[in-house]
Amino acid sequence: MADIATRVYNHKWKIDPIVRSLLDTDFYKLLMCQSVFRNRPDTHVSFSLINRTTGIRLADLIDEGELREQLDHIRTLRLTRGESTWLRGNTFYGKRQMFRPDFMEWYENLQLPPYHLEKRDGQYELTFEGRWPEVMMWEIPALAVLMELRGRAVLERMGKFELQVLYARAMTKLWEKIERLRPVEGLKLADFGTRRRHSFLWQDWCVQAMIEGLGPKFVGTSNCLIAMRRDIEAIGTNAHELPMVYAALAETDAELRQAPYRVLADWHEEHEGNLRIILPDTFGTTGFLKNAPDWLAGWTGIRIDSGDPAEGAETAIAWWKERGEDPRQKLIIFSDGLDVDVILDLHKRFAGRAKISFGWGTLLTNDFRGLVPGDALAPFSLVCKAVSANGRPTVKLSDNPNKAMGPEDEIERYKRVFGVGVQQRRAVVV
Amino acid sequence: MADIATRVYNHKWKIDPIVRSLLDTDFYKLLMCQSVFRNRPDTHVSFSLINRTTGIRLADLIDEGELREQLDHIRTLRLTRGESTWLRGNTFYGKRQMFRPDFMEWYENLQLPPYHLEKRDGQYELTFEGRWPEVMMWEIPALAVLMELRGRAVLERMGKFELQVLYARAMTKLWEKIERLRPVEGLKLADFGTRRRHSFLWQDWCVQAMIEGLGPKFVGTSNCLIAMRRDIEAIGTNAHELPMVYAALAETDAELRQAPYRVLADWHEEHEGNLRIILPDTFGTTGFLKNAPDWLAGWTGIRIDSGDPAEGAETAIAWWKERGEDPRQKLIIFSDGLDVDVILDLHKRFAGRAKISFGWGTLLTNDFRGLVPGDALAPFSLVCKAVSANGRPTVKLSDNPNKAMGPEDEIERYKRVFGVGVQQRRAVVV
Repeated sequence: MADIATRVYNHKWKIDPIVRSLLDTDFYKLLMCQSVFRNRPDTHVSFSLINRTTGIRLADLIDEGELREQLDHIRTLRLTRGESTWLRGNTFYGKRQMFRPDFMEWYENLQLPPYHLEKRDGQYELTFEGRWPEVMMWEIPALAVLMELRGRAVLERMGKFELQVLYARAMTKLWEKIERLRPVEGLKLADFGTRRRHSFLWQDWCVQAMIEGLGPKFVGTSNCLIAMRRDIEAIGTNAHELPMVYAALAETDAELRQAPYRVLADWHEEHEGNLRIILPDTFGTTGFLKNAPDWLAGWTGIRIDSGDPAEGAETAIAWWKERGEDPRQKLIIFSDGLDVDVILDLHKRFAGRAKISFGWGTLLTNDFRGLVPGDALAPFSLVCKAVSANGRPTVKLSDNPNKAMGPEDEIERYKRVFGVGVQQRRAVVV
Repeated sequence: MADIATRVYNHKWKIDPIVRSLLDTDFYKLLMCQSVFRNRPDTHVSFSLINRTTGIRLADLIDEGELREQLDHIRTLRLTRGESTWLRGNTFYGKRQMFRPDFMEWYENLQLPPYHLEKRDGQYELTFEGRWPEVMMWEIPALAVLMELRGRAVLERMGKFELQVLYARAMTKLWEKIERLRPVEGLKLADFGTRRRHSFLWQDWCVQAMIEGLGPKFVGTSNCLIAMRRDIEAIGTNAHELPMVYAALAETDAELRQAPYRVLADWHEEHEGNLRIILPDTFGTTGFLKNAPDWLAGWTGIRIDSGDPAEGAETAIAWWKERGEDPRQKLIIFSDGLDVDVILDLHKRFAGRAKISFGWGTLLTNDFRGLVPGDALAPFSLVCKAVSANGRPTVKLSDNPNKAMGPEDEIERYKRVFGVGVQQRRAVVV
């Protein structure tokens, strides 16, 4: 029997908007947002979309009207009562009431601020400006929209069964990865793939497949909406955005040098246990660790998000030993450009030497490589970053110069201040 | 929104019975049934299920209660008004009113006769006895039930996503076959896979995938229900059952020798054009063609259903030439153990030398080989045949001794009467 009411409702309104909830975002965004809301609420920031894969001319592939429609739809979203209840009542990382009443009240009234959209050189210039806590909430949905609209443009030309076989192939591909991961003893792995996913429904499928296929080895998802709907852990801590903006706000080189630690000091006050994860690479890992205060060595773990991951983990292990900590009690989270081979290699190398865990992103939720002619569904490197704070440009160096961002002269200044020497270039896949 | 009424209805009653309509059978069964109904309505026959793959112990794999439930369900089926309208009003092979009013009236009142079921040596002995037109209608549904119940026993133990990936793999496998067939110019291909299909829903999917993937190269299906629902051609002519029963009824060796031609003489009276297809191998192709009356050479084509298919086609071409016919005006239908490689080979060899067409069966609708551990879903060789007529045993020789059936001494008698010499054994895959 056809459900007539549903069919008629679907006539009137688009089925499957790309972003369907304010919770369809990464959990760490909420943690960071609360921290910003508390510590730096009045900072004026500008976020900008940057397509690092310039060969993909998004403005030629994606219709501007459709893009505006999806972005406008996101501005109509409000936190629902059920979503709010989940955030207020759920336990995150073992803690009740992770989100404080004043933050929740603000979030319940949040509407995402206006966006600015222009075409330039075959790309979209998409920027968001305003108060930091509001603007930062655009990052994940904006990325998801651009990534999916590019995919939809390709899917639109395909037949019904061609489409079914496309998804059949993608499912098989993921399942084969799961089958390779299943026998790995002690594996811990989470979904970090919201931002550059193929689509919401596909990410949701991937998560469910991991629940069935990996059991307790699959520890959760960064996506709040999926965590809520599938009743699993929401995973995530913090990101480069915090040190980037804190650094941009620094008045002197001395303040700049201290900015990344200032971020973590604020974090230290608020969080404990598995939420105390160092992200050391914003301005170069080596200098960051060398100059870090001793209390940071007492944190639970570290997240390796750029550079050679094995090297990064060795550096962290050596640093812990140097500071008198036992690396076997520490957690190393790998989250950069992961796929099964890399996961298996890193697990083999580090299991037993530290607690390790993987945040598997784009190649979990968007591995459509090789599935259509011209590889038109392969994921690409799209980011949405804070580019200025209170009128000053931000900078990111990371451990891979191909991921560096910011004005040339500021990059040089940051390199000098943070004592960054020669870095090895690595291809950025996703 | 959930469709509550449908859900509640599904609570009350099994979703997806294996056979859901009296039309869920092969079209040639209806043509043959009408011929039998007209020419030999009072013949008393016995049909029996034979599992040629004795290594698969069906009685250990399939629960007897479930088997009875499915068979009992088939006995509750009646031709619906819509189905009857379709048979009465549709054009088959370009002809209106293919089914005569007296036959339709009989069919509208048909209930399949009782069955007899026993376990023996790990196999089910499943037999049907009664008047030929009624009993013969059991063949296809009985095969489909056994084949699918064995599959369901395997599927039952699988997880939800494991199942989805299983079908994803099967879809990909079929689509890759379709992609190999798509560029073949002049290809004509039909679905002949009802009897040993994986399931009704899967066969229906295969047919729809062929419609989209092959366009007009896909000429139709042998399955009447799917032909009706998908609005495509129902395909099929006649089978071994007719000469086998006619032969068993022969009183003398001379009558026996004439029996196969007698079948086709009855058929000649009723049908023309593309329905005049010779099936020559019941008692050996060579002798059949050598002794055939000249009017048979005037028929439209031939179906090659056992033995080496290329050899069979060469034999037919030579025979037509010998009888002064132009093979390029004749149709050769290949229908034995086909898969893509064989289809491509035969097409390459015979395209241009005759009109050719393929009836693709088990490896179209049940190629689950290699998809689960122990290959527990691979199709196997199950048949349901007339074993006696008016108390006399039937015999089939075919062009492959591994497909021969009947009592030892009768096989010898038939070989003598039909002048069958040494035959080459070929493995029976499906």
